[in-house]
Amino acid sequence: MLNIGIDIGGTKISGALFSGNKELGREKISIEIKTRDYVMESIAAIVEKLSNGRKISSIGIGIPGSCKNGKIIICPNLKCMNETEIKKIMEKRFRTKVFVDKDANCFAFGEAALRKSKNLLGITIGTGLGGGIIIDGKIYHGLGSSGEIGHLTMVTEGKKCHCGSSGCMEQYVSGSAIEDGSERIYGERIKPDALANLARRGDAKAQQIFEQFGKNLGICLADLNYVLNPEIIVLGGGVSNCSDIFMAHAMDEMRKRSFIEIPKILTSSNDGCYGAALLAAGKGEK
Amino acid sequence: MLNIGIDIGGTKISGALFSGNKELGREKISIEIKTRDYVMESIAAIVEKLSNGRKISSIGIGIPGSCKNGKIIICPNLKCMNETEIKKIMEKRFRTKVFVDKDANCFAFGEAALRKSKNLLGITIGTGLGGGIIIDGKIYHGLGSSGEIGHLTMVTEGKKCHCGSSGCMEQYVSGSAIEDGSERIYGERIKPDALANLARRGDAKAQQIFEQFGKNLGICLADLNYVLNPEIIVLGGGVSNCSDIFMAHAMDEMRKRSFIEIPKILTSSNDGCYGAALLAAGKGEK
Repeated sequence: MLNIGIDIGGTKISGALFSGNKELGREKISIEIKTRDYVMESIAAIVEKLSNGRKISSIGIGIPGSCKNGKIIICPNLKCMNETEIKKIMEKRFRTKVFVDKDANCFAFGEAALRKSKNLLGITIGTGLGGGIIIDGKIYHGLGSSGEIGHLTMVTEGKKCHCGSSGCMEQYVSGSAIEDGSERIYGERIKPDALANLARRGDAKAQQIFEQFGKNLGICLADLNYVLNPEIIVLGGGVSNCSDIFMAHAMDEMRKRSFIEIPKILTSSNDGCYGAALLAAGKGEK
Repeated sequence: MLNIGIDIGGTKISGALFSGNKELGREKISIEIKTRDYVMESIAAIVEKLSNGRKISSIGIGIPGSCKNGKIIICPNLKCMNETEIKKIMEKRFRTKVFVDKDANCFAFGEAALRKSKNLLGITIGTGLGGGIIIDGKIYHGLGSSGEIGHLTMVTEGKKCHCGSSGCMEQYVSGSAIEDGSERIYGERIKPDALANLARRGDAKAQQIFEQFGKNLGICLADLNYVLNPEIIVLGGGVSNCSDIFMAHAMDEMRKRSFIEIPKILTSSNDGCYGAALLAAGKGEK
């Protein structure tokens, strides 16, 4: 049985083909035009390439926003997808079962399966900051928008956020936040990966940006641990690949602010594809 | 079948006798001396008075801190109770089953039962700020210390907190925070109840203190909704009795900071006694 998992990010779409937990292939497309058509056709292209004519049992799609009954409600970082009946459209197009959930929920569900944990918080640090909560082995949705951790208030009268509020955690703990830091210090926006390379080569200013980022992440981790105190916290998303530069600062700050047990904190290079495929294959429930 | 629920606060101990969900009697003792002996004898005195010689099936105790297997780990606002084997001691003393959990967990569990909800966040605003999380009709504990919402960071380099960190939410959203405000403005510490009466009579300074408190509470509510997005949030604890003065400010601030669905937000004059009794009677699990 073949299942496909798709992870829609703010800037790219990834897809992977699975047989059970074995990844058989992977495809990626940059989102060059932020229109609904472009995104939908890119997803379709990935599915076509991965399936290559073979029968697909189900498709799981992780979206960077909230959804209800397979309909996207709102994607703050990819607004063209707001109000898209993505499940309906894709089921019709591919004549197979389609499952849709938030990208961070898919990521967390996949990590919980891989790490055999029933109680895990997944945090994705990419363009934005997202969270997925696993309780009793299932995604915890609440009213539908649980885990929107990017929008906790970190600084009461802080940086303006694209959500309309100000001082949101995403403005301090995300790839964009790191790029903002680089712009302030170097006068140009430098991607986290490139900035991490500068830091690794001893550039003090780059190290400073990651130190501040690490401290902010430490506060974020301490906060979420105080609310959820989960068994495991896994950090994913592109920025997690630079954890060698900032993780020690994050853990220092978290410990300074915590009087309760600190869970296992891990980083992962997985995206949401595996979890999305697993959910689509019926291993979770929405 | 008679069950007793006890709620230990930072300054007083309350107890109530229940037959099913019917409250048959209630007792209260101020904690005049903060020693373990004083607290334990006060609990015993309340149990003796309430039972009045009748057979008690079980006793539930809500403590203002964290516990594991019936042993108190840490009570930040009542440190004399740290490391107390309260379940063991009380079971031996009263020869009946004793159940122990955090006060806010007991409160939340009782409210969930009363409001027939399986997904609820209980927030207790008294001397400190606590939280209890109900998911799928059960208390969600995580590793044991979930819902310690008083210690999320609200201001990165903020007011020193008794927990050792600084800028904790409890320093801005609690009865103590209101008293701090009164001290700054009036030069003396005024209890929230008394200050609320001043505000109701039109005292602008008192109203201002509650406006600031309400705004802080609004941030707290928005934050917790972003993480948990529960079906219902119930505010309890002594300060909730003044909600007529601050709730509109809290809701304004919460709405300003929220782009996801806002749950039903209610206030309750219950303490943790009913939930503690219910849990002791075997209606929950630890």
